[in-house]
Amino acid sequence: MSPTQLISAPISSSSSPAFFGAASTSFNARSHSVSYPSKRLSLCRCVAVPQEEKTAYKTSVSRNENMAKLQAGYLFPEIARRRNAHLSKNPDAKVISLGIGDTTEPIPEVITSALSKRALALSTYEGYSGYGPEQGEKPLRTAIASAFYRDLGIGEDDIFVSDGAKCDISRLQMVFGSNVTIAVQDPSYPSPNRTYKLVGKLGEKDYMPCASLVDAIIVSMPMAYVDSGVIMGQTGQFQKDVEKYGKIEYMRCTPENGFFPDLSKVSRTDIIFFCSPNNPTGSAATREQLTKLVKFAKDNGSIIVYDSAYAMYMSDDNPRSIFEIPGAKEVAIETSSFSKYAGFTGVRLGWTVVPKELLFSDGFPVAKDFNRIVCTAFNGASNICQAGGLACLSPEGLKAMGQVIGFYKENTSIIMDTFNSLGFKVYGGKNAPYVWVHFPGRSSWDVFSEILEKTHVVTTPGSGFGPGGEGFVRVSAFGRRENILEACKRFKQLYK
Amino acid sequence: MSPTQLISAPISSSSSPAFFGAASTSFNARSHSVSYPSKRLSLCRCVAVPQEEKTAYKTSVSRNENMAKLQAGYLFPEIARRRNAHLSKNPDAKVISLGIGDTTEPIPEVITSALSKRALALSTYEGYSGYGPEQGEKPLRTAIASAFYRDLGIGEDDIFVSDGAKCDISRLQMVFGSNVTIAVQDPSYPSPNRTYKLVGKLGEKDYMPCASLVDAIIVSMPMAYVDSGVIMGQTGQFQKDVEKYGKIEYMRCTPENGFFPDLSKVSRTDIIFFCSPNNPTGSAATREQLTKLVKFAKDNGSIIVYDSAYAMYMSDDNPRSIFEIPGAKEVAIETSSFSKYAGFTGVRLGWTVVPKELLFSDGFPVAKDFNRIVCTAFNGASNICQAGGLACLSPEGLKAMGQVIGFYKENTSIIMDTFNSLGFKVYGGKNAPYVWVHFPGRSSWDVFSEILEKTHVVTTPGSGFGPGGEGFVRVSAFGRRENILEACKRFKQLYK
Repeated sequence: MSPTQLISAPISSSSSPAFFGAASTSFNARSHSVSYPSKRLSLCRCVAVPQEEKTAYKTSVSRNENMAKLQAGYLFPEIARRRNAHLSKNPDAKVISLGIGDTTEPIPEVITSALSKRALALSTYEGYSGYGPEQGEKPLRTAIASAFYRDLGIGEDDIFVSDGAKCDISRLQMVFGSNVTIAVQDPSYPSPNRTYKLVGKLGEKDYMPCASLVDAIIVSMPMAYVDSGVIMGQTGQFQKDVEKYGKIEYMRCTPENGFFPDLSKVSRTDIIFFCSPNNPTGSAATREQLTKLVKFAKDNGSIIVYDSAYAMYMSDDNPRSIFEIPGAKEVAIETSSFSKYAGFTGVRLGWTVVPKELLFSDGFPVAKDFNRIVCTAFNGASNICQAGGLACLSPEGLKAMGQVIGFYKENTSIIMDTFNSLGFKVYGGKNAPYVWVHFPGRSSWDVFSEILEKTHVVTTPGSGFGPGGEGFVRVSAFGRRENILEACKRFKQLYK
Repeated sequence: MSPTQLISAPISSSSSPAFFGAASTSFNARSHSVSYPSKRLSLCRCVAVPQEEKTAYKTSVSRNENMAKLQAGYLFPEIARRRNAHLSKNPDAKVISLGIGDTTEPIPEVITSALSKRALALSTYEGYSGYGPEQGEKPLRTAIASAFYRDLGIGEDDIFVSDGAKCDISRLQMVFGSNVTIAVQDPSYPSPNRTYKLVGKLGEKDYMPCASLVDAIIVSMPMAYVDSGVIMGQTGQFQKDVEKYGKIEYMRCTPENGFFPDLSKVSRTDIIFFCSPNNPTGSAATREQLTKLVKFAKDNGSIIVYDSAYAMYMSDDNPRSIFEIPGAKEVAIETSSFSKYAGFTGVRLGWTVVPKELLFSDGFPVAKDFNRIVCTAFNGASNICQAGGLACLSPEGLKAMGQVIGFYKENTSIIMDTFNSLGFKVYGGKNAPYVWVHFPGRSSWDVFSEILEKTHVVTTPGSGFGPGGEGFVRVSAFGRRENILEACKRFKQLYK
């Protein structure tokens, strides 16, 4: 096989020679040695012979060593692999995916009609618009400020409209640069690293990772916050023994501490990523806990990056925004999204709040540097999608979003009731569309496999979100009602 | 005035105390001293008193030193400032803006109806889609491959759909990291750094910079490629004497060298940013020139990042893609966009081609690292906008795009004929919607002011694009026909 053939397989092909070649090269690129479990070799259709590779033209540009530090997306590809193995063993199984938390309900018409209207208007001189402000159109920024931050001293000029929270996390990391230290919750959400969809039964979605199943041999837990930090050079190498990157502070969140880190044991970092309501545990921090967090940040001169993408799912009287905590504007950034409120996961629209009161140690406003990044690395969210966002925040839109959220919350209750009735200790659910089921003393992956084999339901093993998730399984409430009911029926048969 | 008040003015306000305060802090943050022309002081309504600032809470997080290196956006704010000064002196002047190259023609209905249709379908179970592949939906990737790269050996799996070329440039810079050297054309396109629109006459758009007029005191030329390099830490400090950043290779493009750099005088860099057809000079590289460029890259082991966003504007028989040059797949990346083809500047849709044959020095495929960045820092272009892109590439869509492009090309001819008839040496135009008019021996800014004062037409001074642009003025062909005709009438009166 020629070197060109060797690297001419589709980049998205999970078990292509391209990736075996790539993976093997990346091993050389990595400064630490990589073990290679032979049992996984069966994944590869073809083995690259190094001397063949040598004959391919290479540039003299060195690979970014931070990219080489990145560990392969492991969780979702492994889930997909086991799911597909299960499907090939049980071709007629009606598999239900409650794994990846992707929205399934259509977008309310009051919102799509606004999207459609703006799109059609672009064919008229009156309705046409070209480049808009990178920070978002003023009416939308104003509507976000009034819908989510009224009386919190956050103005439209503090709000940056974006194409999603994940993208803003990366832009924030560009602002911070390579010399900051970061803290993340453990467990915490891994970046799915999707490359393409596998066509599954019942139309549910599963994804293969960018990094391919071959890379998945290197067991790791790339997290959205973490990966962007690794890319920016904020971290050390990945330490396989503890499954953590060097220089990152992992804040353990377990039932024992009410899923809120024991801050007396947390080392000071420049940046603290904090997601509440939390994915995967489904727990939401209380006002008292967030007051502690803000004080902790202020005492340490840290910046909190607060991810509130599930705030509207809260039933308890917890703060919907970190800015409900006095003094938070001097230490916190908040990022959120329309994805899980209006089913915008594919439409792409979110926002980030950077208060003008937030200053670097030299007194320079963080908002000014973020603004510069937004203007340099981004060109604004689509004008069509911004019209949809504005419709979401109209009285009718807010009502419609409430109905979508209410539907998923009903799903959540059905799942919680099911596991409660079976005697399991269940966490989350009440304030987020994720149910965090405890299987004390058992391995998350064993439980995942048991559920898949016995009920044909795909869940997510808690350990995939970090060591703190071991012994738990995450059940996502994003799904069609009939699938949720059928899955719960099967759970009851399995664990009755 | 309290420190909080001092930094509580709108971030977008150009002459707000916030930015005076910020700018004065940024001066301390900068390692080089900054002169402060007193004549500009009138721009500031209020002067920040340093000791007042001290009382504001500051975090202990150090500002990213690369961000501090960034020079303020100067060109467009200065144009806006002069334009507004002109408007206040001549309140009744019918100002025509041929400055910023923003599209003005509505999007053809065959395209907006597809955008609308996809949006409305999101309200149905059949048409709803959530997270899509970050690299773009396969039908669009396939359509791009077949429309722009047929017979060039570029497949859909080499194509990454994005929210625009500017955003992809930044993601590519994240792949390359801080240890690469870069080369850019001089003159070259500055990043507009818009913050908000000024409401102008005739509905034309002008923008104010992120960095505000106060920062604009620091004369500089941030370029889209350059700024992202500075942010990633690839460059040295800005050298005000030569108006260049350290460690960047500036490739001079002038009439003397046919707007193609003398490669024998260009030092080797890891990355070569090359825009053709070029903004601002409007010149397009020939097959022979691009063959030289590819050989130059191959001899040096460099990677070319080829910006072909204006390729469809070409009249001459030049390559539309760098991949028409044999061997380019081993040394080049190409980025392009629907912005100037279909009026998508506000809709946001582009793509980048990273051939799987392109390898780092260790043999690792660049596409694999770009894919990882796309999956970590991006979540895919909006599904609605991707439907619009697919419609652009249908037979009717291609025809409609051709008509839009044809309209702007007619504008270009009108402008070229005007300046030719007045005896000016005119460059560009033939292969791009920009006319590059030579005023030998004169300062670009003097000519800009002369044209503004005598004809109320806003152009762009060539020197704003780099030292190589001195003595030139760029006239953009993006505009309503009646404005183009009126502007040309005034040019004829002025220079007859």
